[in-house]
Amino acid sequence: MGNTFGKIFRLTTFGESHGTVIGGIIDGCPAGLVLDFDLIQHQLDRRRPGQSKITTQRKESDKVEFLSGIFEGKTTGTPIGFIIKNEDAKSKDYSHVKDTFRPSHADFTYQKKYGIRDYRGGGRSSARETVNWVVAGAVAQQILSLQGVEIKSFVSAVGTVKLNNCYKDMDLTKIDNNLVRCPEEEVADKMISEIESTRKNGDTIGGEITVIAKGVPVGWGEAVFDKLHADIGKSMLSINAVHGFKFGFGGVDISESKGSEVNDIIVDEKGITKTNFSGGIQGGISNGNDIYAEVYFKPVATIMQKQNSIDKEGNRVEVQGKGRHDACVVPRAVPIVESMMALTLVDHYLISKTNKI
Amino acid sequence: MGNTFGKIFRLTTFGESHGTVIGGIIDGCPAGLVLDFDLIQHQLDRRRPGQSKITTQRKESDKVEFLSGIFEGKTTGTPIGFIIKNEDAKSKDYSHVKDTFRPSHADFTYQKKYGIRDYRGGGRSSARETVNWVVAGAVAQQILSLQGVEIKSFVSAVGTVKLNNCYKDMDLTKIDNNLVRCPEEEVADKMISEIESTRKNGDTIGGEITVIAKGVPVGWGEAVFDKLHADIGKSMLSINAVHGFKFGFGGVDISESKGSEVNDIIVDEKGITKTNFSGGIQGGISNGNDIYAEVYFKPVATIMQKQNSIDKEGNRVEVQGKGRHDACVVPRAVPIVESMMALTLVDHYLISKTNKI
Amino acid sequence: MGNTFGKIFRLTTFGESHGTVIGGIIDGCPAGLVLDFDLIQHQLDRRRPGQSKITTQRKESDKVEFLSGIFEGKTTGTPIGFIIKNEDAKSKDYSHVKDTFRPSHADFTYQKKYGIRDYRGGGRSSARETVNWVVAGAVAQQILSLQGVEIKSFVSAVGTVKLNNCYKDMDLTKIDNNLVRCPEEEVADKMISEIESTRKNGDTIGGEITVIAKGVPVGWGEAVFDKLHADIGKSMLSINAVHGFKFGFGGVDISESKGSEVNDIIVDEKGITKTNFSGGIQGGISNGNDIYAEVYFKPVATIMQKQNSIDKEGNRVEVQGKGRHDACVVPRAVPIVESMMALTLVDHYLISKTNKI
Amino acid sequence: MGNTFGKIFRLTTFGESHGTVIGGIIDGCPAGLVLDFDLIQHQLDRRRPGQSKITTQRKESDKVEFLSGIFEGKTTGTPIGFIIKNEDAKSKDYSHVKDTFRPSHADFTYQKKYGIRDYRGGGRSSARETVNWVVAGAVAQQILSLQGVEIKSFVSAVGTVKLNNCYKDMDLTKIDNNLVRCPEEEVADKMISEIESTRKNGDTIGGEITVIAKGVPVGWGEAVFDKLHADIGKSMLSINAVHGFKFGFGGVDISESKGSEVNDIIVDEKGITKTNFSGGIQGGISNGNDIYAEVYFKPVATIMQKQNSIDKEGNRVEVQGKGRHDACVVPRAVPIVESMMALTLVDHYLISKTNKI
Repeated sequence: MGNTFGKIFRLTTFGESHGTVIGGIIDGCPAGLVLDFDLIQHQLDRRRPGQSKITTQRKESDKVEFLSGIFEGKTTGTPIGFIIKNEDAKSKDYSHVKDTFRPSHADFTYQKKYGIRDYRGGGRSSARETVNWVVAGAVAQQILSLQGVEIKSFVSAVGTVKLNNCYKDMDLTKIDNNLVRCPEEEVADKMISEIESTRKNGDTIGGEITVIAKGVPVGWGEAVFDKLHADIGKSMLSINAVHGFKFGFGGVDISESKGSEVNDIIVDEKGITKTNFSGGIQGGISNGNDIYAEVYFKPVATIMQKQNSIDKEGNRVEVQGKGRHDACVVPRAVPIVESMMALTLVDHYLISKTNKI
Repeated sequence: MGNTFGKIFRLTTFGESHGTVIGGIIDGCPAGLVLDFDLIQHQLDRRRPGQSKITTQRKESDKVEFLSGIFEGKTTGTPIGFIIKNEDAKSKDYSHVKDTFRPSHADFTYQKKYGIRDYRGGGRSSARETVNWVVAGAVAQQILSLQGVEIKSFVSAVGTVKLNNCYKDMDLTKIDNNLVRCPEEEVADKMISEIESTRKNGDTIGGEITVIAKGVPVGWGEAVFDKLHADIGKSMLSINAVHGFKFGFGGVDISESKGSEVNDIIVDEKGITKTNFSGGIQGGISNGNDIYAEVYFKPVATIMQKQNSIDKEGNRVEVQGKGRHDACVVPRAVPIVESMMALTLVDHYLISKTNKI
Repeated sequence: MGNTFGKIFRLTTFGESHGTVIGGIIDGCPAGLVLDFDLIQHQLDRRRPGQSKITTQRKESDKVEFLSGIFEGKTTGTPIGFIIKNEDAKSKDYSHVKDTFRPSHADFTYQKKYGIRDYRGGGRSSARETVNWVVAGAVAQQILSLQGVEIKSFVSAVGTVKLNNCYKDMDLTKIDNNLVRCPEEEVADKMISEIESTRKNGDTIGGEITVIAKGVPVGWGEAVFDKLHADIGKSMLSINAVHGFKFGFGGVDISESKGSEVNDIIVDEKGITKTNFSGGIQGGISNGNDIYAEVYFKPVATIMQKQNSIDKEGNRVEVQGKGRHDACVVPRAVPIVESMMALTLVDHYLISKTNKI
Repeated sequence: MGNTFGKIFRLTTFGESHGTVIGGIIDGCPAGLVLDFDLIQHQLDRRRPGQSKITTQRKESDKVEFLSGIFEGKTTGTPIGFIIKNEDAKSKDYSHVKDTFRPSHADFTYQKKYGIRDYRGGGRSSARETVNWVVAGAVAQQILSLQGVEIKSFVSAVGTVKLNNCYKDMDLTKIDNNLVRCPEEEVADKMISEIESTRKNGDTIGGEITVIAKGVPVGWGEAVFDKLHADIGKSMLSINAVHGFKFGFGGVDISESKGSEVNDIIVDEKGITKTNFSGGIQGGISNGNDIYAEVYFKPVATIMQKQNSIDKEGNRVEVQGKGRHDACVVPRAVPIVESMMALTLVDHYLISKTNKI
């Protein structure tokens, strides 16, 4: 259960970190979309392991192979099956965790829930899965582009190194100018140093990503349980290592504020507001302003230090990370965050077509 | 769309703030549950408007009337229909917003999305709707109790007035000892003062609720898109005025931390961990420790001060709150948070019955 | 589970035959529909018990009360809650079945599945439930009317008394000219006699309803599992006492035929075909011709004759029908069949809005 | 949309007849099932084209390749991805239908619905898709076997050649003793002759399959919209060329009968009934008797005779079948019918685990 995302535009995925392939099916993609395959690969490349010195060194070319649903370059309205090969899985790196539960990993919970687990590379619990999301997200982004929607995401914190400026004062075309995907060069340098020193210590570090969707028209999102921000929040909390989500923009802690301080005054008939503490969503429905959210990541659980744990029989053991891992996931998570935003928005876009007589 | 919550245990609701009644249908409730109707009413009373000097003075008795699905005091496995009367709606208080969009309200987004809206009392966008959730949540809590699960929720912040201690050092039986539902009397007093002075100024204030679920066994939650914490997050973000959600416990900012600082070491075969930065969930699946999350509330949008806005024709207008409103929603939101946690958990409990051969 | 019908236009229902009320929630109804309440009541009146000498004499006025989702006569896009009172339930007629399982009824299966059942009037298994479907179906029909779709249904057989002519040669405006809802007066008279003589014998009799949807545009229905005819079939098989469903028109047994005999030749660019053995659907998708299906009903299980059965303890007992029952359900089932067709079509209409870029 | 079947045990599929591969994802399969891969291949072989002189001569080995969700021979509870290669697609056989709509095919409806179609081999509308269903159905059957459920299906009619005896008097182990999968040798011979003479005339012929599920315990199926027989009916109507479905057993036309003739008398406390006109289901819930249904197939639309039609521009054209096709699908459809029955039953089995406290 739980391997499908969306109600109309639906992504269903399969695959383990060390299986031969990983992949998915996109159902509900409208027919007639001329696909830009380079854009899909571009997003995959931004997520790809081994892309720089600050990411895991697992080498995956991450070329997606589409198996159906596309004819002469266009979507046909039938399901789009796709696979990506796992080329550089090193399963023997994981033989030591076969009978051991790594701290803050899903080893223990999978074993107890299912009574069996594919321990190699974390199996289904690995963030390798997110490669599927980026494929589907890049398709979704192309549909949204036709509606005038643009999604931008960047690293706003690595540990305690944080961006101080507001996104409106930054040049968001510079996001990919550095390895860490932070649009301000000076802060980016500090973030990279922080990641490198953390890695040298065999440690990992948390961080934060900011995501913005511009051009979303008024009226996407449902009124009660499928509020737009609730669905965006769920999509972000699905990403491995995410432990928190906030939406709304303004440089203050909104829950510490007064209504008179954070109410957004509508200034024109298009619904543009003077401030955007609401983050582009009111009553669960987009209001025409920028959608703005922050996503909080835990440090990666796998550290290259000795930690205590237990094995399957309950004996106390020591474990130490092997294999190739990220010391900080946020640089590679930028396209993943964009993808989940796109999947959520495209679904609400399609649902919104049924709102009125 | 979007008026149903859950996959197996499903709540579908209807109703506007100023309609004659509001209500819902619980489908998928297991048969044979002996219902404790007093407990349901008790939760409704905790949410009820007019319960104290620090809440809105709208007077609703909020007595639930069950219409089906219960026979001789037990659930029958068929859908449980229920209604609650709206007794004290004062729709004329809202005639001034008929053609005007209140700042940070859903007036504008509903009007544009649907082309029509029931403006009286905010219609469907009103938090009046949450009375339905409390009915269903109180049923869900009774199923969870039989599984040994106990849900506790309390106000941990009103504006900048915050609890300093950890929930483990508090006496959670004291939550209802004061009007604000904060288990530490001294902090509670400050919170109440803060709310009262805010109200005197015709203003509103944000806050924070902490929610804990004890006794959740290992294995609830699905692996990829229906991670337990993602579904809890979505449920909380569905609550009116909630703008953020974090899970994980420990008194540090997890996204600012190192892996070596926040990894949870498993100390026994039941999966109990030394720390609980994971908040009781690993890889989207409960790990047997306390589930712990924080929910962030914006200040109520309706303030008794003049604010600029526009009307339906795009003319600039001044609006000022009328009617009876909360200056701070968190005291009344405590049972709502508990209810959404219960609805999420009971659904995952039922799904978990199908996990293994 | 299983008390919701539809994916976008969703009906969720509750209620037992002898509860105080029965009702439902329509979610996903587009906003801005000007409701014709008389048309809704008209359909309810066609289904109403006690409407003529050939139906059950239970007297229900079956006035629907709408509770939400409608403002100033128009739908608002929010859920439409509704209830219908059960006015004439005579529960004491059922005390004899409290501990006994009636032959071919759901008494035994409910008892074993749930361990408890509301035996009064058959509880949730009663066809009383279909009153909810007619309310929602009549709303759906109004949306479909705006798309040029007209649904017609009539009784084509009572026992072995059958219509011989094809629907194209009949005057379908005459359906309601007689008690049995058969458009050919002479056959209708024979059907009425058949029902009356059956009833006099304390017996019941099966029958058949034909349903036609005219004006459905090309393109409704999904390609693989949600084929239009599969969803129509499921909707019809949901109706109490229905045991079979066939679609396709032509006066021959299609499964006994050759391809050369029953292929439909397309004669113009709108897709109009010379014959309509496909019943208006090809590959699961409407093709612009009349949708045509036949629905087969079992005789009502409750007969006024002594039958053997067992009680809860497994003892052999004799049971005999009491209470007021239909000797033949098809006259009253005509609006129910129309309603399920409408609910299926409106859902596919809304889904079809998302098919293309 | 519409490429997913099931609520808990969910099959999602993709693929076109002439793509490189076709495949699917099974989500919600319980963990710990020891898979019998030979049984899966056995069912695929029974559906395989080219298996005998009375089927299409397209040669496909139809070996399934599992990509995930299985570890050391057991299911892990994570999604099971699988593919089957399309080895013998001859797309040039279809160039003549690129711009032409074949009679009683989905060419026209796909073109109009989506504005684009993969015309090669019928694309997504081809019965090639059902190979995916047999893979998933064979997995489902293994779960059902552990519950004591056995599904049997056989050809009961080819055109007007029909079985006269009741299934209880036949030796169902003989189903695969002949090419047509009819358990009575003499009738089977006539059916084979009928198919062969039909084929010689360049024609096709319809037929009927009977399906029986033995050992289904009391209590599967939901009460109102997800009645067991309604879901079975939908599953059967999803199969290419199926145009009708009836359930209930007894050698009479039930809709022509009296209640006194077709009521099933319960004779013991397990719910065994003297007759089985209800086909093992009462009130939508299995009653412990054999589930019995009949499935009606149209003749294949592709005939080797000249037929009139139109092309994309609306011009009148003549079309004639090319490529390799079945003259009668029912022999190969036997394992497909079994698979859809298994998929429906396994889903209701899993849902039934949540029925009671």
